[in-house]
Order: sequence, then structure tokens, then C-alpha cells
Amino acid sequence: MNRRLKQQIDFILEADKLKNVIRRNYLSDDSRRENTAEHTWHTMLTALLLYEYAENKQELNLLHVLKMIAIHDLVEIEAGDTFMFDTEANKHKFDRENQAAKKIFSLLPYDQGKEYYDIWLEFEKEETPDAIFAASVDKIMPVLLNTYSKGTSWRESQITAEQVLTTLKVIEKGPRKVQELLEELVAIAKEKGQLT
Amino acid sequence: MNRRLKQQIDFILEADKLKNVIRRNYLSDDSRRENTAEHTWHTMLTALLLYEYAENKQELNLLHVLKMIAIHDLVEIEAGDTFMFDTEANKHKFDRENQAAKKIFSLLPYDQGKEYYDIWLEFEKEETPDAIFAASVDKIMPVLLNTYSKGTSWRESQITAEQVLTTLKVIEKGPRKVQELLEELVAIAKEKGQLT
Repeated sequence: MNRRLKQQIDFILEADKLKNVIRRNYLSDDSRRENTAEHTWHTMLTALLLYEYAENKQELNLLHVLKMIAIHDLVEIEAGDTFMFDTEANKHKFDRENQAAKKIFSLLPYDQGKEYYDIWLEFEKEETPDAIFAASVDKIMPVLLNTYSKGTSWRESQITAEQVLTTLKVIEKGPRKVQELLEELVAIAKEKGQLT
Repeated sequence: MNRRLKQQIDFILEADKLKNVIRRNYLSDDSRRENTAEHTWHTMLTALLLYEYAENKQELNLLHVLKMIAIHDLVEIEAGDTFMFDTEANKHKFDRENQAAKKIFSLLPYDQGKEYYDIWLEFEKEETPDAIFAASVDKIMPVLLNTYSKGTSWRESQITAEQVLTTLKVIEKGPRKVQELLEELVAIAKEKGQLT
């Protein structure tokens, strides 16, 4: 196998480790916590389904959005999952994850590694229309699973409805329908006593 | 929430069950068997990375390929994972999975459900360039994980190198580089005694 393909295979095998990174939230059947690899698939699927609600489709590139989601959490292999409501851990999150991104994407051939590092950075900054759409869908996923399960990860940390709405502020810049969905889910969760 | 969005959310929550469908092969670190949701993400990531090897890019639509991979295994929620080397179980696989596909995609709003059912059928038939590319990548994934782990799922069933090459025949129609990769992986696995 030539060097280029070898580098790609090494990267693909390294990416396999994302299946062992465990997130805070549980699956909708409460059976166990979710891992980041399956979360990423679920987010890509949801992005495909909810794309129709984007009001700015002429500014979006859905393929680019999917690339972005596919790789956005690979840094967790090195940096671990950071609970979104852990203010302290989130202070240095970008620096830790940026180091991790440089490391993991450097496994790829230089041109491809640079392409994906740039895509990762674009996602993190949440400035471009593609990044805002991708981040909106990414952030709604644990809210969906929490609301339709027992919401254990919220209960464990006594998360409030206000905290969810504030922390997921990027959704306000995404499709109006996703923002409405967020508000509705939070109201349901509050009523069920899963958010205080 | 209006009826359309409600149907989409129901589908997304149903899809969550794919995280509990367990495949035969193990992760590359041998720690446990892989689930189908994380396999799907890994396949989408690999499709993005190996797309450069497609010789017929003008016939391919990478976004369509990703849609296809994203939903190709959802039928396993109803029909279960079918081990590719189980000849008996594969006889009625299409019928079982077709029933499952009709059921799961009917959760979606009609137009979207039809779009994804048609995409699923296209994948299953392995006739269009997009379906052949998607199937090639899908089929190389367990070979990669088996070769670079202890190959437990192959050993358990005493799979031969010839069986792998015959069963994964669709790869011959995909990118030459993926076919070469398959042959190389099989040779490595044979040398390691993971295939007989």
C-alpha cells in the first residue's frame, strides 16, 4: 500500500477510538450513555432530515455541513468529552481541542489533513452559515435524547431550563424551526421535572 | 410542534435504536463488538476520505452517497444484523429488510419517507455508480477492523480468505484502489492466521 493510503488507513483506525469516548447523555431508552461516534452519525442523519428548515439554503453547502459534522468531535479521542454545562472545563476547551485537532489531522496526507483541520476550525468558530447550521443540529441532539428519556444527565447535575437555553445560544442563529423545537423540548422536560 | 416535524422527530428517535444493534465484528482494540450506528458513521467518514480514488467522479454525487450510507442499515432495527457469511440467513434477507424499510421510512412525512426508501432500495441493488461506491466502502469497513484487531468474528466462524473475496465481490466494481486494499488486507489477515 502506498504512503498516502497508509496514512488514510492509520487515520481511519485512529478514528475508531471515538466509539469508546462516552458522552454524558443517555440513549433514549436510558440503557446506557451514548458514545461520540454514534452521536455523530445521529447528528448527520438529523442534519439531512432538518435541512429543509434552513431559511438560507442558497448560503449553505449540505455536503460541507456533513463533512463538518463527521469530523467535529474527533478531537475528543485526545481531549475527552467536555460536558457543555461544566463552565470550568469549558474555559480551556478550545486550546485542548485545538492541540488534539492538530495531532489527529496530521495523521492524514498533508493536503487532506489541512482540509479537515480547517473544516474543524470553521465548525468551532460557529461563524459561517454552514457552521451555524451544523452546530444547531449538533446541539439539539442531546436535548432530544434527554427530553425523551429520563433526562438522567441533566438531573445528575441539576441543570436548569435557563442553562440549556443560554448554553445552546447558537441555535438562535440557526433555522427558526430548530429554535422553536429547542424551546418546546425544554418546556416538555421542565414539565417532566427533568430540568429545574 | 406541527405534524411534519413531529413525524421527523419520531423517526429520529426510532433511529436511536440502531445504537443497540450489535454487529459481528469487533472494534480495532478488540474491546467489544461494534454497533451499527457507529459503523455507519465510520463508513461515512471513510467514504469522504477515499472518494478521491473513485475513477468515475463525474458519475458520482457524494452527497447522495452519504445520504445512502446514513440510512442503509436502519432496517436492522427491525430485521437485525445479518452476518454476511451466513448463507442461510442471507436467502430471505432482502424480503425481511424490505418490510423493515417500508415500516421505518413510513414514520417520516410521505415525501421524505419515499425519498429515503428509494435511496435505500438503490443501495441494496448495487447498480448505480453511487450505490456501488457506497457499498464498496461499507464492505471494506469490517475487513479493516478484522484485519487490524484479532479478527475474532472471522476466527469464530472459520472464515476463509476466498469467502471474503467472493462475498465482497461488489468491491471489484468500485474504485480500483479499494479493491487493491481489500486484497492487501486479506493477505495480511491470512498471514496473521485470522483467515484460513
